[in-house]
Amino acid sequence: MNPDILKERQNATFDVEKLTNMLDGGPEKTKRRREIESMVLNDPDFKEEDPNFLSRSERYDQAVRKSALMILKLREYGIADPEEIYCYKNMARGSSHEALGLHFVMFIPSLHSLCDPQQARKWLPLAESYQMMGTYAQTEMGHGTHLRGLETTATYDPATQEFVLNSPTISSIKWWPGGLGKTSNHAVVLAQLHTQGNNHGLHAFLVQIRDMKTHLPLPGIVVGDIGPKFGFVEVDNGFLKLENVRIPRDNMLMKYAKVEPDGTYLKPPSAKLTYGTMVFVRSMIVGESARALSKACTIVIRYSAVRHQSEIRAGEPEPQILDYQTQQYKLFPLLATAYAFHFVSQYMKETYHRISGDISGGDFSELPELHALAAGLKAFTTWVTNAGIEVCRMSCGGHGYSHSSALPNIYVDFTPACTYEGENTVMMLQTARYLVKCYRQAKAGQRLSGIVSYLNEADHQSVRPQPVAAGTTGVDINDLASLVEIYKRRAAILIELAAKSIQQELQHKSQEEAWNANAIDLVRASDAHCHYVVVKIFTEKVGQIENAEIHSVLSDLGLLYALHGITNNSGDFLQAGLLRVPQVLQISGRIKQLLSQLRPNAVALVDSFDFNDRKLNSVLGRYDGNVYEHMFEWARRSPLNNTEVHESFHKYLKPLRSKL
Amino acid sequence: MNPDILKERQNATFDVEKLTNMLDGGPEKTKRRREIESMVLNDPDFKEEDPNFLSRSERYDQAVRKSALMILKLREYGIADPEEIYCYKNMARGSSHEALGLHFVMFIPSLHSLCDPQQARKWLPLAESYQMMGTYAQTEMGHGTHLRGLETTATYDPATQEFVLNSPTISSIKWWPGGLGKTSNHAVVLAQLHTQGNNHGLHAFLVQIRDMKTHLPLPGIVVGDIGPKFGFVEVDNGFLKLENVRIPRDNMLMKYAKVEPDGTYLKPPSAKLTYGTMVFVRSMIVGESARALSKACTIVIRYSAVRHQSEIRAGEPEPQILDYQTQQYKLFPLLATAYAFHFVSQYMKETYHRISGDISGGDFSELPELHALAAGLKAFTTWVTNAGIEVCRMSCGGHGYSHSSALPNIYVDFTPACTYEGENTVMMLQTARYLVKCYRQAKAGQRLSGIVSYLNEADHQSVRPQPVAAGTTGVDINDLASLVEIYKRRAAILIELAAKSIQQELQHKSQEEAWNANAIDLVRASDAHCHYVVVKIFTEKVGQIENAEIHSVLSDLGLLYALHGITNNSGDFLQAGLLRVPQVLQISGRIKQLLSQLRPNAVALVDSFDFNDRKLNSVLGRYDGNVYEHMFEWARRSPLNNTEVHESFHKYLKPLRSKL
Repeated sequence: MNPDILKERQNATFDVEKLTNMLDGGPEKTKRRREIESMVLNDPDFKEEDPNFLSRSERYDQAVRKSALMILKLREYGIADPEEIYCYKNMARGSSHEALGLHFVMFIPSLHSLCDPQQARKWLPLAESYQMMGTYAQTEMGHGTHLRGLETTATYDPATQEFVLNSPTISSIKWWPGGLGKTSNHAVVLAQLHTQGNNHGLHAFLVQIRDMKTHLPLPGIVVGDIGPKFGFVEVDNGFLKLENVRIPRDNMLMKYAKVEPDGTYLKPPSAKLTYGTMVFVRSMIVGESARALSKACTIVIRYSAVRHQSEIRAGEPEPQILDYQTQQYKLFPLLATAYAFHFVSQYMKETYHRISGDISGGDFSELPELHALAAGLKAFTTWVTNAGIEVCRMSCGGHGYSHSSALPNIYVDFTPACTYEGENTVMMLQTARYLVKCYRQAKAGQRLSGIVSYLNEADHQSVRPQPVAAGTTGVDINDLASLVEIYKRRAAILIELAAKSIQQELQHKSQEEAWNANAIDLVRASDAHCHYVVVKIFTEKVGQIENAEIHSVLSDLGLLYALHGITNNSGDFLQAGLLRVPQVLQISGRIKQLLSQLRPNAVALVDSFDFNDRKLNSVLGRYDGNVYEHMFEWARRSPLNNTEVHESFHKYLKPLRSKL
Repeated sequence: MNPDILKERQNATFDVEKLTNMLDGGPEKTKRRREIESMVLNDPDFKEEDPNFLSRSERYDQAVRKSALMILKLREYGIADPEEIYCYKNMARGSSHEALGLHFVMFIPSLHSLCDPQQARKWLPLAESYQMMGTYAQTEMGHGTHLRGLETTATYDPATQEFVLNSPTISSIKWWPGGLGKTSNHAVVLAQLHTQGNNHGLHAFLVQIRDMKTHLPLPGIVVGDIGPKFGFVEVDNGFLKLENVRIPRDNMLMKYAKVEPDGTYLKPPSAKLTYGTMVFVRSMIVGESARALSKACTIVIRYSAVRHQSEIRAGEPEPQILDYQTQQYKLFPLLATAYAFHFVSQYMKETYHRISGDISGGDFSELPELHALAAGLKAFTTWVTNAGIEVCRMSCGGHGYSHSSALPNIYVDFTPACTYEGENTVMMLQTARYLVKCYRQAKAGQRLSGIVSYLNEADHQSVRPQPVAAGTTGVDINDLASLVEIYKRRAAILIELAAKSIQQELQHKSQEEAWNANAIDLVRASDAHCHYVVVKIFTEKVGQIENAEIHSVLSDLGLLYALHGITNNSGDFLQAGLLRVPQVLQISGRIKQLLSQLRPNAVALVDSFDFNDRKLNSVLGRYDGNVYEHMFEWARRSPLNNTEVHESFHKYLKPLRSKL
């Protein structure tokens, strides 16, 4: 092991294994996770070429091979628990995606939730034995988040008892569904249902797109890959153009709405609360944010411990770059953020499961809050993580640009999370809609419960921008609880500001125009609300830690997270009179102290995430710190080095000389 | 043409062609640029496959072919003016880099500046006829910015009158030089010179690495490609390991220092001010920032004019996404920034040329300021642009992830600018060093000239953090000159804060430790200084515009740039008492007004950049706005669509069914 990184580990003040257990949810969970991971590590079938050296077609091929392999292995090992399946696949996938991902995540669940019992009996066994391989085709080239705008049509023809599906315009071509391009032979297609001369809006139809034996596209189906992308290189996101494609009447998924043989449309019996899955997926994304940022931090902090550069004191050896204050200032707040997001993800999971229980019992009361929180936190955590990964990458200097660092791939594979499952700005505005509604209810004297109950607090009437010097703030910048309080008040003020501004504009604008004219402030208010929630959860989780050493270091991290957020938004806090100028200066000083305090534990804090080297796949982030020899070894395997002389020399450069 | 984008153009309030002329530097410059561009556009030799569909080896091949072609064409057309060569190459390269880029930018210039007359006579003709194809090998695997840390050795052997070159460690392997992997047969190698038992520090040596006929690596040379990277896909950044490579004594570049046949080392006659080139290159990068951000803005703003999504008013057709306030708030400040950076780039170019004249005349007085400014502005503009490109990309929704948008490539090809030619944080600290020095001089009563003269101003003693409510600020938020003034005072305050804090720490720390302990504040001070300079130059340039309509729209842009910067840093302005709370709220309102005011001119403002469609290579950013049909056409050419059924179906998915 590299002696620098060994020394770092010797200097840590806490027991890494104990913190790992905490993150996993207990020592037995850590043990089982490692067991499952080692099934993959010890399996020669999962040995493979670094995807960075392969063409897109080869990478797709590799992903399909692994998808098939994982199905067989999971059966062989009898792994059936969803969390364990996740863990196994997570390791087996490595840095690539599952070719059949949408089949599991969207196709089968759609059949489950949208089929009537007869349809389910017929189709689910076919899907579960991979005769059917499916995807979910909703978005179109011209339409993303706004479902009502989708243009694909399914027109019922009573003469043949069939639906005729069409893509009436170029912009109506289905676009983006994962696995649609080459892998799937079926798709659940969302289309505008027309029957008896009426449009009944969006409904789901099961459409076969390829022959189940030959895999060739069926007549009327124009299907293919949408071309190379930023990230998700090995995924065949596809397009689907429907040209008078006829499907039997009972290929409409009829659990709710129905079309009778004569074309009569039967409305669904009740508008269902169907956003449970959406909430679940967005909560999962919060966890993905935590994982992605933890990975990036692991790589850059380990590398910063073995990399020596420049000089702090003239004539002395080059210091570890982790000793530079600027490097610490870039990385430690992100490390704190990674921990914050882990805790928030745990909280979301717990809350989701608790509320799911309530919902089964018929109690929907907490769902709107969770829905609003999931939307906002999805946006908040993905934006922060997205920018944070790039800070980590660029903090590795030149080597952060090499694919051997893994950081470019972590970025491109994470960044779509800012857009999929709800575009982030749209998400923030959704949360804002909920917050403004709550604010108005509170104003009208209603008692709010849950996280938004702060909008009820007596003093919210007085929370308004005020001169910074007015009054004493009584804030203790070393006390997390005190900081939670001012984050809360900041959120309350920004929500109130936005709500009042809308109210004002309503005098001469429509509801919708007034909303759009204040969208900037609404996003800002949502952001402040989410920031408050994160600081609050971090603080609560830290409070629950019993181990004294871990409690101490995580308290420092929590404090750094909260104070760093304040300096980055100091205008808000000053403007609202929540802090005064000397306190802001004090906070800058305190942050520097915290950086120094955290410095000896930095490597141990990323070790605690316990990413296996194979999972990281980064020469810079190796556990043993032996960076340079592995970077050299990796580079020599680059395909451009397959020959000593590239053919282009003979084709262009040699002839050039004679032409001059 | 798409009717939406046509309408946008009809609504513009100014003459696009006139603004284009302004950006080019006059109508005759625009004309000549278009002439040169059309040479490429009409040349069938430059027709080629979209690099997004090619493997790395094919992309390298394409780049080499084009490099050779450009050399021949430029001779054929007799284009010799550096600006015209740049323009021709810029168009011909498309979105790829020049395979022989380092040969022109570093190898030949190094020979020019470091050879003695005899060496120059011998080698330059070989380099100019491409017998020699070279690169510049400075950075090593373990060493980037800190030159003294480089480990490669050149040990003089008087017995044979040769230097023996070695890479004594893994970390000493030369790493990153462009064109080193496969293209070059020579390299200027930087190595520690050892002779007669002494190390005389870094010197430059001409080392042949490949046979000039067969192109095979010579004995003792281990050379190759460093592997795939984020961006620069087609460039063969290389590694070079030297194993007892012997070169003749006169392959040391001897313009300054010399080694005599017996091994006697002769020091260079004087320490030369050699950072002229560095300043030039960094100034060029400011221009690259402007261009990259302009390109990204062109794509996203045109696309936002043709994309319709969701609804502002219920029941009405989906609006152009450019009508959403949140979209405007993301994009228009970036558009303003692109204009700001164009003007700063013009300023840097003018200043460089003016000072170059002074330097030839022996007057070096302005060089330190320009050097500091180039370092800081390189960092400031690349960081802002780097983040800005991603905002543009993500503002295109899902399609921003497709390579058909061109935005992913604009990002990955731009982001290295944050690291090469001086890592940004290091650059900011370099500027800070200059600023602190100037501050101390001013404190000591010296009169400063140039941009930093504001550190002299009488009131700088009173610029210190103060309660926000104290005094009236007298700032007119609608007056650019007034805003320049507060940006200036903010910079002065932050420089003073950092300088004083260092002074304080010097009581119990060494100079270097005190510096490192305040690095965060020093970076912040540099950033504020650069921000001031940008606002100042923007304001001055706007003041020079004679055309009333253009003056009006660029004044709005300038104001938006300045006010947006203030809200993003409102803590600084409040803290320093430069603004008061009601003014900050007023500014938010004013920004919303400016967004609405600029809305009708947004497309015209990006049209003015006059990027040819071929250069943009973006289906989203097409001049005619016909986005969707071209996206479909592009996707169908994706290599994964070469066959209807991918072989992986037969290899893995079909067999899977039978194994279950």
